[in-house]
Amino acid sequence: MPKDPLTHLYSHETLTAQPSAIRDICALVARPQVRSLAGGWPDPAKFPIKAIRRILDDLLTKQGDQLLQYGSTEGLEDLRKVLAERMQTEGLTDAAPDNLIITHGSAQGMHLAAQVFINREDVVIVGLPTYFGGPGAIHSRGGNVVGVPVDRDGLNPNRLRQEIKRLNVAGKRVKGIYVIPNFQNPTGVTLGFERRRQIMDMAETHDLVIFEDDPYVDLRFEGKHLPSLKSMDRTGRVIHLRSLSKTFVPGVRLGWAFGESGAIRQMVVAKQFSDAATNTPAQYILLEFIRLGLLDKQIQENIKFYRAKRDFMLAQMDRHFPREATWNRPQGGFFIFVKLPKNMDADELFQRAVDKDVAFVTGQPFFVDGSGQNTFRLSYSQVGEEDMEAAIREIGNLIKDSLAGR
Amino acid sequence: MPKDPLTHLYSHETLTAQPSAIRDICALVARPQVRSLAGGWPDPAKFPIKAIRRILDDLLTKQGDQLLQYGSTEGLEDLRKVLAERMQTEGLTDAAPDNLIITHGSAQGMHLAAQVFINREDVVIVGLPTYFGGPGAIHSRGGNVVGVPVDRDGLNPNRLRQEIKRLNVAGKRVKGIYVIPNFQNPTGVTLGFERRRQIMDMAETHDLVIFEDDPYVDLRFEGKHLPSLKSMDRTGRVIHLRSLSKTFVPGVRLGWAFGESGAIRQMVVAKQFSDAATNTPAQYILLEFIRLGLLDKQIQENIKFYRAKRDFMLAQMDRHFPREATWNRPQGGFFIFVKLPKNMDADELFQRAVDKDVAFVTGQPFFVDGSGQNTFRLSYSQVGEEDMEAAIREIGNLIKDSLAGR
Repeated sequence: MPKDPLTHLYSHETLTAQPSAIRDICALVARPQVRSLAGGWPDPAKFPIKAIRRILDDLLTKQGDQLLQYGSTEGLEDLRKVLAERMQTEGLTDAAPDNLIITHGSAQGMHLAAQVFINREDVVIVGLPTYFGGPGAIHSRGGNVVGVPVDRDGLNPNRLRQEIKRLNVAGKRVKGIYVIPNFQNPTGVTLGFERRRQIMDMAETHDLVIFEDDPYVDLRFEGKHLPSLKSMDRTGRVIHLRSLSKTFVPGVRLGWAFGESGAIRQMVVAKQFSDAATNTPAQYILLEFIRLGLLDKQIQENIKFYRAKRDFMLAQMDRHFPREATWNRPQGGFFIFVKLPKNMDADELFQRAVDKDVAFVTGQPFFVDGSGQNTFRLSYSQVGEEDMEAAIREIGNLIKDSLAGR
Repeated sequence: MPKDPLTHLYSHETLTAQPSAIRDICALVARPQVRSLAGGWPDPAKFPIKAIRRILDDLLTKQGDQLLQYGSTEGLEDLRKVLAERMQTEGLTDAAPDNLIITHGSAQGMHLAAQVFINREDVVIVGLPTYFGGPGAIHSRGGNVVGVPVDRDGLNPNRLRQEIKRLNVAGKRVKGIYVIPNFQNPTGVTLGFERRRQIMDMAETHDLVIFEDDPYVDLRFEGKHLPSLKSMDRTGRVIHLRSLSKTFVPGVRLGWAFGESGAIRQMVVAKQFSDAATNTPAQYILLEFIRLGLLDKQIQENIKFYRAKRDFMLAQMDRHFPREATWNRPQGGFFIFVKLPKNMDADELFQRAVDKDVAFVTGQPFFVDGSGQNTFRLSYSQVGEEDMEAAIREIGNLIKDSLAGR
């Protein structure tokens, strides 16, 4: 990190901030010759480039003035209407535009929610492991995160209950839970139906805010769609965060947050002083894309596309990985999480892999308690079959070497 | 404001947040029949729609994959290079891409700078009056703002010195100064050269951060360009914020922050957890627009265009406003600030004006100490000549009525 003559003037949160190690890993392995299973970016092969070009050309011709002007802080009203209608079909029957704010990705949704709810020293419970966006947003407000294990059925409610009790006994205020219910990053696991109910009960009992980060929900390959925590929310305490990055395109940075109109209004106020408004052309393009019925088609195509990729990667893992490594079979999303024997170090495996021009992401940076040294994450989202096979074979061989003490 | 069952869980900053009164005013007067001199939005008549359409069509055809994919948090490297070269021509000879972060408007630049530097209870000095973005970002971090008068030559350094002394005696830590050096919103005044030097000296003496918010600098109609505070910065304590909203188009939400590489790196870390990355297509369009030499042309055209608008408004004010009202002649930007006799209430004038379908923005919301009840802001940026004349005549008549006790 470069030196700065102003270091002594930094805020508390800046002095304690941890840049994302995962981003650093992805930057490190961005050399063109590397076969990378590291990044969780969508495959540009599925970007609806032609449709976007057609829509943009049309919109710029007909209403360029509006398209390039500032928009309102909460986002385009027609787009909020259309998104609210989609939320209604998900069991949120009274969803309305006032329940919605359009954000620059779900990342901004989480950031604004943290601004609205988190005070310094507030504790938020997160999964062990979890995507770093939630903890990062909490830390940026001076809050603390505490981890609770994620098992094959998601965040474990018994451990959650114990942890809340332990924290309360220690005199700490638990403010909320950050949860990625579907095909979680990095584990790929989905929070079970019964657990969703239990977590909502606990949230009511302990007066918690639920930050429900759900960027992958639309990418379910098989099995039944489970109701969101938001749809089970009788007391208005869930902030539900969505992204268009995995179903439309990531570069336009679009997402939305959905919740009680009061909390959403506070997020709008926070956004006024955060970036004033969301990119206008991106919102108009998406609105038109939805109106033309293209988003639902795009989602169906993406499901087919990423399901085939998942199947291919799982087949290669079955073929090339030794039985000492274990992993899950995700029902959607982008990720497979691998556990090595306890005494094996995924960091060392990573170094060896990079030497062979193969990359993945180690698991440890996803564990807020620093555990997980024997785990790593594979992403099938961005890589083609040939590279995927070669990379999985190489990683398999490196694990076997390691087991043999080579 | 809607009720929220979670109000008791709000953060300190949410409970004390003030939504922008100016935005509320602008929303209130957005009815189509209103002749509005309220909003400070650029005139879409000057948007380079055709060029953008051509560039987009070309880029989507040739490199749609890149254009729609996630980008890096700091922003497109080629764009940062080009912007750093532009900063070099402004006297910042060692400007480099690492000194720059691309942001979603200069609003986000200020937000990230506040995240990096402001702790709860830190004091930042702002102009009386000032644009609300700076104070809003400071408040969102739990910081406090204290006002120092802006006169016809900008922020008054003697009053600034007194205020710092007063605050130090009161045991308060002054962390920085928020300053809009050119054609300030809302007053239109420019900070004089000698004052810039004095403020930089004070910043060194008192170890302050300078938040230099400079969205209008490129819209100078006449007079000599003054060196930025950043260009006088020997100790790396200025964060210089820029916007493309007034020179390119506002809807794409592009700006940049410029500073020491260490501080900029911290702003990048803050952005990781704020919205992860800036809209990719917007950055590629701007890069191409600059490469084609169109930005400089656009700036020259905008200068001509808005200068004529300013001249027209000033002529109408000379003609229709009574001598008891006084105002300045801005050398650039979008705004003229009007002072009424001390006992007149601009709020009352505003109500009467709205009844006549004419609008402006009252001055008081720009004064963090609640003063300025006899002032208002006029913007010539968005309105055509016919409406401008009718609106100025109407406001002039209303002031005359008020003076006559009618």
